[in-house]
Amino acid sequence: MAAPRENKPPVGKLVKAETIAAGFHTDIQRALLPSSGPPRLVGILATNSGPSETYAEFTKRTCEGLGVDFVLKRIGAALKSTEGATGDEPDITVEDAIIEANEDESIDGIMVYYPIFGGSQDHYLQQVVSPYKDVEGLHVKFHYNLYHNIRHIQPASLSLPISKTPAQEASRPSKDDTIPGGMVRSILPCTPLAVVKCLEHTGVYNSVLDYGDRAYGRIVTVINRSEVVGRPLAALLANDGARVYSVDIDSIQEYTKRPSPKLYHPHHVVHPTNKTLQECLAISDVVISAVPSLDYKVKTEWLKEGCVCVNVSSEKNFEKDVREKASIYIPAVGKMTIMMLVRNLLRLCHYQDLLHAQPILESN
Amino acid sequence: MAAPRENKPPVGKLVKAETIAAGFHTDIQRALLPSSGPPRLVGILATNSGPSETYAEFTKRTCEGLGVDFVLKRIGAALKSTEGATGDEPDITVEDAIIEANEDESIDGIMVYYPIFGGSQDHYLQQVVSPYKDVEGLHVKFHYNLYHNIRHIQPASLSLPISKTPAQEASRPSKDDTIPGGMVRSILPCTPLAVVKCLEHTGVYNSVLDYGDRAYGRIVTVINRSEVVGRPLAALLANDGARVYSVDIDSIQEYTKRPSPKLYHPHHVVHPTNKTLQECLAISDVVISAVPSLDYKVKTEWLKEGCVCVNVSSEKNFEKDVREKASIYIPAVGKMTIMMLVRNLLRLCHYQDLLHAQPILESN
Repeated sequence: MAAPRENKPPVGKLVKAETIAAGFHTDIQRALLPSSGPPRLVGILATNSGPSETYAEFTKRTCEGLGVDFVLKRIGAALKSTEGATGDEPDITVEDAIIEANEDESIDGIMVYYPIFGGSQDHYLQQVVSPYKDVEGLHVKFHYNLYHNIRHIQPASLSLPISKTPAQEASRPSKDDTIPGGMVRSILPCTPLAVVKCLEHTGVYNSVLDYGDRAYGRIVTVINRSEVVGRPLAALLANDGARVYSVDIDSIQEYTKRPSPKLYHPHHVVHPTNKTLQECLAISDVVISAVPSLDYKVKTEWLKEGCVCVNVSSEKNFEKDVREKASIYIPAVGKMTIMMLVRNLLRLCHYQDLLHAQPILESN
Repeated sequence: MAAPRENKPPVGKLVKAETIAAGFHTDIQRALLPSSGPPRLVGILATNSGPSETYAEFTKRTCEGLGVDFVLKRIGAALKSTEGATGDEPDITVEDAIIEANEDESIDGIMVYYPIFGGSQDHYLQQVVSPYKDVEGLHVKFHYNLYHNIRHIQPASLSLPISKTPAQEASRPSKDDTIPGGMVRSILPCTPLAVVKCLEHTGVYNSVLDYGDRAYGRIVTVINRSEVVGRPLAALLANDGARVYSVDIDSIQEYTKRPSPKLYHPHHVVHPTNKTLQECLAISDVVISAVPSLDYKVKTEWLKEGCVCVNVSSEKNFEKDVREKASIYIPAVGKMTIMMLVRNLLRLCHYQDLLHAQPILESN
């Protein structure tokens, strides 16, 4: 016989990204009903790293399940590690593969399995991907829109540099999420977007509040401040109304859009804070950790009773007993990330349709 | 009486960047003869770091000596550290200051004193600077042109993303350095360009050879492979004909444009190499080191007799006795970097003149 239930401490819910992703599956499949054939996504794999191989395999399976034509392009070390490779394959660089995919009209979206070189060389490659095919949302143009809370854009404006962004793109989001005529939603980086969708699913976002402010009242700690996950995520949540503590190795900052700044575009501002991590966690309704280290663990004892915890790292950043404090624990977001990537692909296909339906910017 | 000279080993020449920079002074001053007033360069200083303060002070002095209107904009920590600051100054971010300068028509060029946040957040800021005002040449568009050996561009093409770069920009450089009609030289990042100018001055570039291939026959070791100095410098030298060993902590690569690759744009390719640093140095005519570390020293005993050594780091990367092996030693390039920055400013002013003289790309 099992031990009597009342002797066991109550345990928070385990919510898997898979479950959340399933909610998007039908919508995406419906949107994919072939009018002009399935969209084509190319994945560029340039290393023989195990996690990248796994992620590529998983992207392939998800895409095929949804009806997206996924093509894996192996180059360099990823090619050499393939069975059947003769060694005579042409030796092209990642950058060449990206340029080829940019120019290939049969390809609708491009994703690249990072890290390849790591650091700023990967950042350079992310800018070489055409924003019109950037399903991962890593182009600086999309980051700029995110940081400045620019939610709607004219598709043609992606052909312009940041400094030429049309002023009307800086309009505040409408209260009911309507998109102004001639405009589309900007693309958001996949991983931060996946986390936001997980928070919407778990009730952190309050749909009673106006669109664009549905995280108002929530205090969130985001551990990691990289340009790929932590900083855009903190900005996204703050632009949606949350008060965010952004924690990195050497500093803790507070991101908030209140009081509303009177700057170029209304968006969050960043303040220094003297709070310690322990103090931030003690008041946080949500804790998101994305530290790429085996050793890093958020102390369960520091968590606020009933908080929501999300692990974004490939390593587990929470202790085993996290659910003794957390009301909800999401152990991984990878499956939502891929779903958001496919949703971005559909949006980019829509951008292209609009561009072909109206005169576009051309070089003279 | 001094010791007899014949007992002393012969010592290589010490060449100061100041001397090399002086050669550009007159040309730049002449080009600056006011037709429409002096160009205005804004320097954005956001930290209270000593080296950044010194560099800002030095930029100011050089600009004033040349007749450039230099405005130092202090924000954040740099503002608070100023005498006379009341603490009531508005708290704007570096990014806001960049956007303001992008939009201010009275400003012709923008430079930012990095590092501010370090890593990818600084890289993000570099992409926010309008390429039309990017005197430092840090915009990815300029790096792309450099890596692909695209030397001439249409000024209007800077309004397009990389993936829309007009094909004709990929033309090979002409043998006599003529610029095709309607085109201008692309901007090169300041520090790599400063090093190239030092190598031209010291006879490493051979003016008997065709333009675009004047480093042919030279073997160069570049120690450091960052996106700001090492990688663009290695590519620039390889595109000019040199065989370059690019050395970083974890690998050594060979950059060469021979045999000529048949890819998108004719440019250098990168090969792995099994050579050690010692083996590279033993055959290198030129050694350039840019390692930002007090402890890092290139061993004099490993150098090839009579080589040219250039120190690009703020720390000294060569041993005290370097001139016992090197025929020429350039201990610092900072003064040339600023000169190249002003030259880039003049070029960008010229871009703007051309753009105003012809119809340009506009958002609809």
